[in-house]
Amino acid sequence: MSQKLAPSIRVTFPLLALSLQCIIIVLFALFVKYSEDSPNKYDATYPVFQDVNTMVFIGFGFLATFLKRYGRSGIAFTMLLAAFALQWATILEGLLFDFKESKIQISIISLIHADLSAVSALVSMGAVLGKTSPVQLLLMTILEVTCFTVNKWLLDVLLQINRKTSGMYLHLFGATFGLMVSRVLQRSGLKSGHEKEGSFPISDLYSMIGTIFLWMFWPSFNAALLDTNREKAVFNTYYALAACTVAVFAISSQVHDKGKIDMSHIRSATLAGGVAIGLSAPLIPYAYIAMIIGLIAGVISTLGMKYMKGALELYLDLHDTCGVLYTHGLPGIIGGIVYIALLSVPSVDRQHADYWQMAMLITMAMSILTGLITGFILKLNIWKQPPDLKCYDDQAYWEFPHQATEDGKRSPTSFLFGKK
Amino acid sequence: MSQKLAPSIRVTFPLLALSLQCIIIVLFALFVKYSEDSPNKYDATYPVFQDVNTMVFIGFGFLATFLKRYGRSGIAFTMLLAAFALQWATILEGLLFDFKESKIQISIISLIHADLSAVSALVSMGAVLGKTSPVQLLLMTILEVTCFTVNKWLLDVLLQINRKTSGMYLHLFGATFGLMVSRVLQRSGLKSGHEKEGSFPISDLYSMIGTIFLWMFWPSFNAALLDTNREKAVFNTYYALAACTVAVFAISSQVHDKGKIDMSHIRSATLAGGVAIGLSAPLIPYAYIAMIIGLIAGVISTLGMKYMKGALELYLDLHDTCGVLYTHGLPGIIGGIVYIALLSVPSVDRQHADYWQMAMLITMAMSILTGLITGFILKLNIWKQPPDLKCYDDQAYWEFPHQATEDGKRSPTSFLFGKK
Amino acid sequence: MSQKLAPSIRVTFPLLALSLQCIIIVLFALFVKYSEDSPNKYDATYPVFQDVNTMVFIGFGFLATFLKRYGRSGIAFTMLLAAFALQWATILEGLLFDFKESKIQISIISLIHADLSAVSALVSMGAVLGKTSPVQLLLMTILEVTCFTVNKWLLDVLLQINRKTSGMYLHLFGATFGLMVSRVLQRSGLKSGHEKEGSFPISDLYSMIGTIFLWMFWPSFNAALLDTNREKAVFNTYYALAACTVAVFAISSQVHDKGKIDMSHIRSATLAGGVAIGLSAPLIPYAYIAMIIGLIAGVISTLGMKYMKGALELYLDLHDTCGVLYTHGLPGIIGGIVYIALLSVPSVDRQHADYWQMAMLITMAMSILTGLITGFILKLNIWKQPPDLKCYDDQAYWEFPHQATEDGKRSPTSFLFGKK
Repeated sequence: MSQKLAPSIRVTFPLLALSLQCIIIVLFALFVKYSEDSPNKYDATYPVFQDVNTMVFIGFGFLATFLKRYGRSGIAFTMLLAAFALQWATILEGLLFDFKESKIQISIISLIHADLSAVSALVSMGAVLGKTSPVQLLLMTILEVTCFTVNKWLLDVLLQINRKTSGMYLHLFGATFGLMVSRVLQRSGLKSGHEKEGSFPISDLYSMIGTIFLWMFWPSFNAALLDTNREKAVFNTYYALAACTVAVFAISSQVHDKGKIDMSHIRSATLAGGVAIGLSAPLIPYAYIAMIIGLIAGVISTLGMKYMKGALELYLDLHDTCGVLYTHGLPGIIGGIVYIALLSVPSVDRQHADYWQMAMLITMAMSILTGLITGFILKLNIWKQPPDLKCYDDQAYWEFPHQATEDGKRSPTSFLFGKK
Repeated sequence: MSQKLAPSIRVTFPLLALSLQCIIIVLFALFVKYSEDSPNKYDATYPVFQDVNTMVFIGFGFLATFLKRYGRSGIAFTMLLAAFALQWATILEGLLFDFKESKIQISIISLIHADLSAVSALVSMGAVLGKTSPVQLLLMTILEVTCFTVNKWLLDVLLQINRKTSGMYLHLFGATFGLMVSRVLQRSGLKSGHEKEGSFPISDLYSMIGTIFLWMFWPSFNAALLDTNREKAVFNTYYALAACTVAVFAISSQVHDKGKIDMSHIRSATLAGGVAIGLSAPLIPYAYIAMIIGLIAGVISTLGMKYMKGALELYLDLHDTCGVLYTHGLPGIIGGIVYIALLSVPSVDRQHADYWQMAMLITMAMSILTGLITGFILKLNIWKQPPDLKCYDDQAYWEFPHQATEDGKRSPTSFLFGKK
Repeated sequence: MSQKLAPSIRVTFPLLALSLQCIIIVLFALFVKYSEDSPNKYDATYPVFQDVNTMVFIGFGFLATFLKRYGRSGIAFTMLLAAFALQWATILEGLLFDFKESKIQISIISLIHADLSAVSALVSMGAVLGKTSPVQLLLMTILEVTCFTVNKWLLDVLLQINRKTSGMYLHLFGATFGLMVSRVLQRSGLKSGHEKEGSFPISDLYSMIGTIFLWMFWPSFNAALLDTNREKAVFNTYYALAACTVAVFAISSQVHDKGKIDMSHIRSATLAGGVAIGLSAPLIPYAYIAMIIGLIAGVISTLGMKYMKGALELYLDLHDTCGVLYTHGLPGIIGGIVYIALLSVPSVDRQHADYWQMAMLITMAMSILTGLITGFILKLNIWKQPPDLKCYDDQAYWEFPHQATEDGKRSPTSFLFGKK
């Protein structure tokens, strides 16, 4: 690609967004009906729902602002995709799981399910952040939420696995799906590193708003859909995250030749404990087990970012802007293995462990396959992919008061002031 | 005005602030008494109160930081005015509505009412942001809260309209009131655009902290005072905001000649759906209706910011720093019309619709009239209005470690570093 | 100290952090057991716990980002220390207070206790912020939490004072402890002011994220552990903070010769009202009393920052980076005095007031003594204290993409962009 201007999305983007929105409204008109919970159930669930909601919009939103010139896109596209994903997920979850008498009954629990599906899409977005147009991101969101929900439905139909549990595979599914899309979209011009890919200290601080809200409310996330053992899930997640955080600081300093800590590890790997404990949080009987899992997840996530990230990019063309493989993918695999190990304890039904091995394999296969297909769809020339020079750059899609010249070169302060 | 230094507020501001605070303390000593709710009611309401509180202090506070050189004032004056407004509103609401045996009984619900009155004052502040001294802002807050509360009381006395419902007119009242004040305070020196009025990418990101907290907790806001149908109000607000957000992104890109999205639309217009659905959220039976209302509000709000804002400023001298007309005013009118339409449905009491037409007219008339009067009061020379050169500039009221020269010219980085 | 490079923490820091983490895991394995509350109790307490948690990680975390070149350290070291403190506090509190049948039973209340201990450590951190290595901070956290918990245990054993009440001394204890550590660590090279000590307007805005979350959730903080009178504690804290805020703005403007407000006062002193009301919040019968206490705390805190801070530094070598003496120390003393005065009211048991005078003296003595000892331990050469030039500077401990030259001189924009 040699053009220097990002292709205008003026026709494609509004057309796609408004068409999808209108289709969603028609589907809501045909199928959706409110069902109210008992007031007690609602009062107890609403704060937890808002915690999860905060993770989606503030947590993932600000986490995505770490790129030095891509802050507006990070926060605003997260908002757009999440707003889309939660509407679309309401429909799909309803049709596949809550369809009774030709109607979908939605309650506060449906909103939490929708938020979780939005998270799976935002994880995928993390892998391709900065390299895709909003048109591509919208399409990817629709496809990812669809495939993720169908995967949960398959696990339900084939293995009788409840979606409240299988939903915890969202990290693994989202990360793998996103990586596959990123792999297909990878192009030679982005290979040897991009001058705009990276953070400023100031964008690091913005992204820490995201990290810390995610970190704090992760106990709510892991317990949100549970009917029993919610308290235990909260405790286990809390202590897993605490141990994970200490491990990440320690390892990050240890693997640097001058002992300096890397902010990108703190930003991402501190969350690995919450992911790794996700599935088994309500089952683990003692805090120290949760802490060991959190500690291992933190170590693996940090080492992965340090040593695997560059290698995967170099040798396998697997570019991963936010490092979702290390925050969500690997910890998701750890979480799956821990869960299977827990179910394999003699006292527990052996059958279940086998089912869950199967479930994990199906989820991996589905996410790889559907991610690759989605990647090829997004690669079509019609979706306004940004040219190499305009990747990781808000100027491709955002109005700036004083537009910089379009040669891609600006003074460092243009990040802040928007003019040359 | 030709002076180059902002007039010192050293005497006027502390005097006014402390006098008002002491008067409030005396009134509290005379009239206010605690009344405790049942523990269950309290436990269920407290998290919702904190959501609304977060909207006031973080939401409106950070929303007001978008001006490139006025971030400190935006966040800190919001904090000051809100702290004032909520004390003053406690007294006024109590005297007009909860006065029994010479005492005002306050409960957690009183705190929510007070927060809502604070919001109405903060909306007005948005219209005059950057052009007024803290002395003027304090006065405006006292007057606005008074007029807003009296308006609710009038609607109660004249039309038997419950304040829990009429309180939802706060957006319409606040926006109109603020615009009227702004109209009276407008001066020739600010007409042709001000070099400091506008945002930096970095201040855009700050203001998004505000936008997103407002967006997320808007369902709590619309449901906070409801005794019944809270869950329905939450759902309707949630889906209205989601559809609104998609519409704003789409229209913002469509109306730009290169398809670029305008951050000021995302910052403000995405909230229009929550305002437009405010009154009728507990009544709307189906989500798709809420989504259509949200979508329309988003479209109108975005188009208003794009095409009306400049025209009103040019032809009617109606300058509106934050665009409160498009975030709160027009969506407030849409909300009023939708509510009247809902009440006009044959099955519903016809009488009510007539009452509500009247209520809306009274509210508009009151806000215009009292806003104009307030404007003329604030125009008096004694309130230390900042000179044109010092508008939209923190240096007028804030201590900087290394004070810039007072010629109003600084390097762009002085926003960040406070020195030349 | 003449070296220009900060000593590498590559060995010491990971070794200490991981050893402590492993010790904690072993102690958890030996002693900790989950105990579940009744679902109702849990549902009502969880949102309050999350408010307090938000204060710890977002509140204190962003409050500590105000230094112009030390934002990463501020937010990230807060996260690290808090993650440590809450694990360590769980163990200690459990051993001293909840040890039954050789096991510590932890519940959601234990998590709140742990958060409060973390706060006491973070207050101490505020006094030495920027002048200490992460190794020193870790050690200080362990020692502070230990001494603070032992102090609560002493008050329980000697004076039968419940830890739910004595825990409110955390501000006084944390501030005094931190100041003593700072006193011992003070060195000639930092005496005459440090060029990097101070804020930028942009780091002021970051720290306001912290201030406002602390401010908003302070009612939750003061009421979190109460069994009765929670609502009253919330109201009193709320109005005390509101009156305090108005007073801080007024006094800050009044004491400046041009009437300009000082952002550092707004950042810190607005919280003094919440500290001063902490102990007596559930007892104060009328809001106006709370408002008077808040107002006085705000005035004293602002005047202290303006006139005492420099003097203590100059004459007593008491350097206090965040001004914790004025946000936590003095208001903590006010709070203690108010509480004793309340208990001395004739109708109340006279005995209690005497006990509380004793309790306050013990707490002061303990915090001074243990703070001094901790200071001397931290002064040992082995803990990698940063050299004078690298104080208040993220570059000492953080990896920057483009490392500045190590002469300590960089362009002002290096705060943002990390390179020369």
